[in-house]
Amino acid sequence: MQLNEIVEKLKQGQSGVVDFKISNNTVILAAASLEKAKENEISFLDNNSSLNLRNFIKTSKAAALLLPADDDFIIEITKQISIDWILLKDPKIAFAETLEFLYPSEIESEGIHKSAVIGENVKIGLGVSIGANAYIGDNTEIGAGTIVHAGVVVYKNVSIGAKNLIHANSVIHSGSKLGDECVINANAVIGGEGFGFVPTSRGWKKMPQVGIVILKDKVEVGSGSTIDRPSVGETLIGEDTKIDNLVQIGHGVTTGKGCAMAAQVGIAGGAQIGDAVILAGQVGVSNKVKVGDRVIASSKTGIISNIEAGKVISGFPAIPNKLWLRCSANFKKLPEIAKAIRHLDRRNSR
Amino acid sequence: MQLNEIVEKLKQGQSGVVDFKISNNTVILAAASLEKAKENEISFLDNNSSLNLRNFIKTSKAAALLLPADDDFIIEITKQISIDWILLKDPKIAFAETLEFLYPSEIESEGIHKSAVIGENVKIGLGVSIGANAYIGDNTEIGAGTIVHAGVVVYKNVSIGAKNLIHANSVIHSGSKLGDECVINANAVIGGEGFGFVPTSRGWKKMPQVGIVILKDKVEVGSGSTIDRPSVGETLIGEDTKIDNLVQIGHGVTTGKGCAMAAQVGIAGGAQIGDAVILAGQVGVSNKVKVGDRVIASSKTGIISNIEAGKVISGFPAIPNKLWLRCSANFKKLPEIAKAIRHLDRRNSR
Amino acid sequence: MQLNEIVEKLKQGQSGVVDFKISNNTVILAAASLEKAKENEISFLDNNSSLNLRNFIKTSKAAALLLPADDDFIIEITKQISIDWILLKDPKIAFAETLEFLYPSEIESEGIHKSAVIGENVKIGLGVSIGANAYIGDNTEIGAGTIVHAGVVVYKNVSIGAKNLIHANSVIHSGSKLGDECVINANAVIGGEGFGFVPTSRGWKKMPQVGIVILKDKVEVGSGSTIDRPSVGETLIGEDTKIDNLVQIGHGVTTGKGCAMAAQVGIAGGAQIGDAVILAGQVGVSNKVKVGDRVIASSKTGIISNIEAGKVISGFPAIPNKLWLRCSANFKKLPEIAKAIRHLDRRNSR
Repeated sequence: MQLNEIVEKLKQGQSGVVDFKISNNTVILAAASLEKAKENEISFLDNNSSLNLRNFIKTSKAAALLLPADDDFIIEITKQISIDWILLKDPKIAFAETLEFLYPSEIESEGIHKSAVIGENVKIGLGVSIGANAYIGDNTEIGAGTIVHAGVVVYKNVSIGAKNLIHANSVIHSGSKLGDECVINANAVIGGEGFGFVPTSRGWKKMPQVGIVILKDKVEVGSGSTIDRPSVGETLIGEDTKIDNLVQIGHGVTTGKGCAMAAQVGIAGGAQIGDAVILAGQVGVSNKVKVGDRVIASSKTGIISNIEAGKVISGFPAIPNKLWLRCSANFKKLPEIAKAIRHLDRRNSR
Repeated sequence: MQLNEIVEKLKQGQSGVVDFKISNNTVILAAASLEKAKENEISFLDNNSSLNLRNFIKTSKAAALLLPADDDFIIEITKQISIDWILLKDPKIAFAETLEFLYPSEIESEGIHKSAVIGENVKIGLGVSIGANAYIGDNTEIGAGTIVHAGVVVYKNVSIGAKNLIHANSVIHSGSKLGDECVINANAVIGGEGFGFVPTSRGWKKMPQVGIVILKDKVEVGSGSTIDRPSVGETLIGEDTKIDNLVQIGHGVTTGKGCAMAAQVGIAGGAQIGDAVILAGQVGVSNKVKVGDRVIASSKTGIISNIEAGKVISGFPAIPNKLWLRCSANFKKLPEIAKAIRHLDRRNSR
Repeated sequence: MQLNEIVEKLKQGQSGVVDFKISNNTVILAAASLEKAKENEISFLDNNSSLNLRNFIKTSKAAALLLPADDDFIIEITKQISIDWILLKDPKIAFAETLEFLYPSEIESEGIHKSAVIGENVKIGLGVSIGANAYIGDNTEIGAGTIVHAGVVVYKNVSIGAKNLIHANSVIHSGSKLGDECVINANAVIGGEGFGFVPTSRGWKKMPQVGIVILKDKVEVGSGSTIDRPSVGETLIGEDTKIDNLVQIGHGVTTGKGCAMAAQVGIAGGAQIGDAVILAGQVGVSNKVKVGDRVIASSKTGIISNIEAGKVISGFPAIPNKLWLRCSANFKKLPEIAKAIRHLDRRNSR
């Protein structure tokens, strides 16, 4: 694809083309990072990149660059370099769109593989693809255009919407309901039994888990992540919420729309997560805690009580991020602090 | 099922029926949480619930409520409401039992699916169900009434007891021994190779892992959890120990009876866990550490040395929970503490 | 195998035989730990073992012991015991080698199971074994001697070298390249989509992940671990790097040679890990951070900024291990410290 074609396509997109220079109009064959891009490749520089990275564009070997339009330093450089460039309001979105142009996802609809096992009374929409050795339980519905990869197991009575992408060897338990355009990555488990045991004099008594898991539209669940169903009612993941790998979502958790949860986050049973909440890697949320809209928790944060909307938090137990940064800086000084007190104490007791 | 039938059944159970009022004797069709229960539904209030939750019963739309018998506040309310109620010593157990009555688990024994692959010399008990595309290796035994779901892989020489429930796509490695009434959730891995490598001048030398994993009766293992086998000897999970999702149990770990391990707990090789130990989410236990009976560790605790029986611990490294709460409260004050010392120091050095 | 045969074989190995006493020359049937070894079993004592463990050899019931040659205390004991013994420079390596002699791994090459599904244009080397219900996508190559267990899903265009061992139900995505002698444990996911979403006014925009994952020779990946592919370029795991269970490796991460990462480690996107780095359990590494060669991070460490080569670190945020030990010791004293300050303050303000 030639660079002028990419410019025309970007103008139709969301990235905001502000200006461009096309003198070589090279054929763009691939995309790469700024450090690694070479001839016939396109790369990008994000808004607010480090000086180190911004300087890279002077020596880049890329054929074309997607650059931030609001950066005088960059605009100055563009006058000095021979590489073609496009100035954009959001070069990262432009790069995402360019990747879509350059690497169109293959339409993989290949029908139902002859080794797949389909139960009774299963409704399968138009253009659905079901891979080798997949299993679809009785009374399950799969909407149009959904792709189920090899080895997936869907239990009975599951409802899967349209245009879902369900990767290999993932498991979807009975009663689960998936909206449209969800992605379930490999080996994820949706709707497994919640961890509910009541202590008795004769040992643990299992609380039956007869609820279900609901994923709204555009939910994505990472490889190996697990989302449990509750004893009664629903575990609910809101529209456009994105979940990374090896994340645990306990029984009865609800999340709002547009959340992002990084790898190895764990959310205990019954926690209520608002809209647009961002939880970084290895964050934990205790059971029944309420986390307000737009809360951001940095990595390894432990949230053990309710958090108001809009807070940026860190640490365990979670405190405001800025306070945590200062506390952590002082944590390193604890030996000195303890020594200073011993010293002061001695002086005072003289 | 009508409410009076439920009362009769509860009287046979473990929850201790103390009193009840049945005036409407509604047909109970479902169970729900106190906040969400509506007509024809039953709900419950646990012992020692919050005032907030206890007040809910005044406005509940449920058809019937399972309530704690030892709570004067509740008994007062029962006089004012028109809902039918049952007073119980343990309303949570009553709710668990009621769920069993209302949602009897389907007997899923459907024999051996024609797509399942069964090795040589496999012994399969009465009423065993083996799902689509499951694989059972040579010389394996599966006890009566065990259900093996679709896509499960059982290697050679495995011994599985009676009435186990083994969910889809889980993997059980050679030599593993499961007792009776265990539950292995989806995508769990039992008996994988322990992580043992010895540094040498030519790189890592693998320590062969020729031991096995033993799960005693009534062990439950969560979705995606992994239990490794050791170089020699056994990794042993004691009777009635319950393991949540994404938990790692290292090679040669032993646990006692009746433990509960919440999601994302990690126990390193050779650790010895006593009876009735409770580890909350994301707890870590270092290798070869001994954790005494009935120890409770709150979430994210890091246990790096032996812990005496009965202790309640928190933090990393683990300290007594009450001390940790006070230390954490003071952690937030570290900037002030450091400032106070600078101030005092200045005054003193004048 | 008789003990004198084991001695002869160890002489060919890497463990450094220094001396031995064979008077009983028992037939060795098995290996066990020092505490559990009994007649016809061999055991070992590692260099620098605890006094407690070293005393064990006086009462051991083993038929033979592999012992450290550099330990006068041990040599003294060997004069008093009737058990046969071998003194070695590295008894742990000797034990690993002995396990190999006693428990030779079965050559499992059983050809391609008739239930396996093989795509078009797949190249399969000599002696490859492909298990029941495995799926191999189009245009994939599998090198000589590789064993693919039951239920494994390999997508299209994957390159797998020679003598790999790929355990049940693991998933390898399109474009991944594995070297020789790798081990992929059960339910691991190689080459899943990186977690890249750009915020826009209309919700999350997915950054296409068109890069690949490369595992060099002798890489081992634990059960349930996940290694993501990046938007462009490669996620690269260096030769002889060993990864334990439930580890998350983000998109675009690179690691050097000979690293070891214990269970539940999480490495965020774009982090660069040097050679011979050791990360203990539940360690987290933030995105784009550089970790120098031979860094050792103890369990639960949170690495949020670059770390120089050779450092031993702990805590969150990571600080030098020795400092962390002192800070943690003082953390426990925070209530006292705060009290001392209040006391001093009161005295001073009089």
